[in-house]
Amino acid sequence: MKMILVRELKKETNKYIDKKVKIAGWVRNNRAQKEFGFLSINDGTTLSTIQVVYDQELTNFKEIGKINVGASVLIEGVVIATPTRKQAFEIKASKVTLFADVDEDYPIQPKRHSREFLRENAHLRMRTNLFNAVFRVRSVAAHAIHKFFQDQGFVYVHTPLITASDGEGAGEMFTVTTLPLEKVPIENGKVNYKEDFFARQTHLTVTGQLQAEAYAQAFRDVYTFGPTFRAEKSQTQRHASEFWMIEPEMAFCDLKGMMKVAEEMVKYIIKDVLDNCPEEMELFNSFVEKGLKDRLTKVLESKFKMITHEEAISNLLNSGVKFETKPQYNGDLAREHEKYLTDKYGPVFVINWPKEIKAFYMRLNDDNKTVAAVDLLVPGSGELIGGSQREERLPYLLKRMEEMKVPKEDLWWYLDLRRFGGSTSSGFGLGFERMIMYLTGVENIRDVIPFPRTPRNAEF
Amino acid sequence: MKMILVRELKKETNKYIDKKVKIAGWVRNNRAQKEFGFLSINDGTTLSTIQVVYDQELTNFKEIGKINVGASVLIEGVVIATPTRKQAFEIKASKVTLFADVDEDYPIQPKRHSREFLRENAHLRMRTNLFNAVFRVRSVAAHAIHKFFQDQGFVYVHTPLITASDGEGAGEMFTVTTLPLEKVPIENGKVNYKEDFFARQTHLTVTGQLQAEAYAQAFRDVYTFGPTFRAEKSQTQRHASEFWMIEPEMAFCDLKGMMKVAEEMVKYIIKDVLDNCPEEMELFNSFVEKGLKDRLTKVLESKFKMITHEEAISNLLNSGVKFETKPQYNGDLAREHEKYLTDKYGPVFVINWPKEIKAFYMRLNDDNKTVAAVDLLVPGSGELIGGSQREERLPYLLKRMEEMKVPKEDLWWYLDLRRFGGSTSSGFGLGFERMIMYLTGVENIRDVIPFPRTPRNAEF
Repeated sequence: MKMILVRELKKETNKYIDKKVKIAGWVRNNRAQKEFGFLSINDGTTLSTIQVVYDQELTNFKEIGKINVGASVLIEGVVIATPTRKQAFEIKASKVTLFADVDEDYPIQPKRHSREFLRENAHLRMRTNLFNAVFRVRSVAAHAIHKFFQDQGFVYVHTPLITASDGEGAGEMFTVTTLPLEKVPIENGKVNYKEDFFARQTHLTVTGQLQAEAYAQAFRDVYTFGPTFRAEKSQTQRHASEFWMIEPEMAFCDLKGMMKVAEEMVKYIIKDVLDNCPEEMELFNSFVEKGLKDRLTKVLESKFKMITHEEAISNLLNSGVKFETKPQYNGDLAREHEKYLTDKYGPVFVINWPKEIKAFYMRLNDDNKTVAAVDLLVPGSGELIGGSQREERLPYLLKRMEEMKVPKEDLWWYLDLRRFGGSTSSGFGLGFERMIMYLTGVENIRDVIPFPRTPRNAEF
Repeated sequence: MKMILVRELKKETNKYIDKKVKIAGWVRNNRAQKEFGFLSINDGTTLSTIQVVYDQELTNFKEIGKINVGASVLIEGVVIATPTRKQAFEIKASKVTLFADVDEDYPIQPKRHSREFLRENAHLRMRTNLFNAVFRVRSVAAHAIHKFFQDQGFVYVHTPLITASDGEGAGEMFTVTTLPLEKVPIENGKVNYKEDFFARQTHLTVTGQLQAEAYAQAFRDVYTFGPTFRAEKSQTQRHASEFWMIEPEMAFCDLKGMMKVAEEMVKYIIKDVLDNCPEEMELFNSFVEKGLKDRLTKVLESKFKMITHEEAISNLLNSGVKFETKPQYNGDLAREHEKYLTDKYGPVFVINWPKEIKAFYMRLNDDNKTVAAVDLLVPGSGELIGGSQREERLPYLLKRMEEMKVPKEDLWWYLDLRRFGGSTSSGFGLGFERMIMYLTGVENIRDVIPFPRTPRNAEF
């Protein structure tokens, strides 16, 4: 008898009613009574469990009653229709085999565990409903992103993780080295990087954008989807030291064209996850954030608004609201500002930011004060996407690099792109974990990354 | 007039014949004659160019004649059917606008460039036919892998890149640190990692397998697809310091079941790329490896063979061939051995390897000498995949870790998987770049990675 997946069994139940099947899975619950008992079995292919009934006729009835939560088992039995109950079927066992037992200190018991406790058991927490749902949604959303771009002919580019250049011209970066830390070779008070693996100083990348731009000047539409790193010591719910980013880059595309793609992408991901993870989304809607599904459906139906940064600040100043941080025409938006704006507008693109607070590669607008940058703010999460039209004019770019002290020598190849037929180019970055938090209502980034890395934490 | 992509134009040419269109792209060639001229334009959406005819009627005819290779241009014109020529159509320009010019030292001219030269111009080389084809195939193959696994319900897991454990129990790893290299804090002759970012020693991962195993014990079928790192100083055509790996892991699955999935996956990728990249595969077949398409089609039609490591060695010893490296029953297979075996068998799984030369987590066979490991050898490339059934029996696993001096403390969570319902589990690793080399016939790994990292080289 071939083993069957619970997913198949649920999908085509009618095909299997009154037939004998064989399944393997893990025990989520075992309620042994005097003459019969019930096993809740999860085989990993669906969020919900299926019920297996066992009775005295089984020669190992007593042993089955003692099987612990967490053990893996093999079940043979007949699929019985249970039309009056919540689950459409159960399995009447003809054979139950213990595959692997579980030690007494198994932490994942059928009761409520705190998220902190489960973080300390990150190797086991996806055996709970909440984390099972989170990490299945993460997988489905990742695939949705690939489908969205590949179906439109975007070329997926694996940009390098180890890099000698600093894409953002700021930010704290991790050093990558093979020098012996006990005995770093020093010459005239400085590290002799000639002896290091790459014969120069190298870091973990903070963005793949600059390299993606090079590819956009050959393939027109490209995207990255890979890990990026920040060595920031801040411990917040929204920051991790290692996370995944999606960075599309489009040649012959201006800021407006870019916003169109960003809006379509966000809606595509939401729709795909709602369609393909109904059980999981129902769980988040019931137990994580009431009204989640409504919130997401509304996004699907809305047309994203667009305002300038200046309009945003005027709005905030004229709102009559007392903000903790005073809105400023040359300043960034605080979380409370973002909340006010998304309450008022729904999902909204804020464009044309003051150049002082944005990166060197963003295109200077004709006002000489602002750059063609955009943030997408969404209800509940604030900033979801940041992007810009790139400065394609070499003299302007060089001037900004000088003003912002970005080293030109390392970026000779990036400057080359402007010398060799460089077209208009625009792109944005989506923090993948931000998107998962937005989709699930889960508020701590540590709870949407399989094995999160944060300051003082690289366990597992 | 809306801009149209060359890809659309080629796909639905009939729809556009005698219609006016607007395209943007880069000049690959410009042949100006006295009364008319031809521009070869590539817009990045297809490998091949399209021909644009311009003539004296255009007011800027002389200027167009001077547009250099590499410049970006906007073209408006009418699509003309050219049924007697190789290309089904050309565009008769009514307007040609220079978008961005190109400096005189543009390295990518319409002539043959050496691959070494193009490696030094990795930010531009995908503007040549060969590298354009390679990196489009890389993108399509990556998507094929996601489709293959997702369509079967596998959950995609992002395993951590920064890690405190050493998955292979060997191998040279990159150190990740934020300690100041000029002044590393030393206590009693040892680095004081308490002051480092993660408050412990951390590296870049060599494999996501161990973490994937944890996820397989919750989701049954999972896969990783992410970057991995090796700090090996060897400079070979087949090794890079940073590369991408695919690592599926399946619970309730033995070695035989794993091999079935591996065979299906390899065939799926080949078929998908042959179907979706016909132009690119034709280019490789003509200019990189004659007979490439035949070789790949043969793989699709074959049933992969299976032999034991012992049989492989006997085969080699009895072959009458004088190998440079003598085949040994307790030894690894050299490239020349792999070649002999694939010449004889075609794609072949070699199973049951001597435990001494394999990793600690592989399941010990009943002979106490070999482990349930497998390498897939393929004609032309040798080893493409390595995998194993994992040791699920805790005492056996602990014994192997002791014998191989793998630190148990860091891997407490990995050992937990054996204590808490750990089922049979098997998985394999596919080096993504190896697969791309196999698909394209390109022999140097540096030529299938956008910006390769190798010893002493982290440019771009």
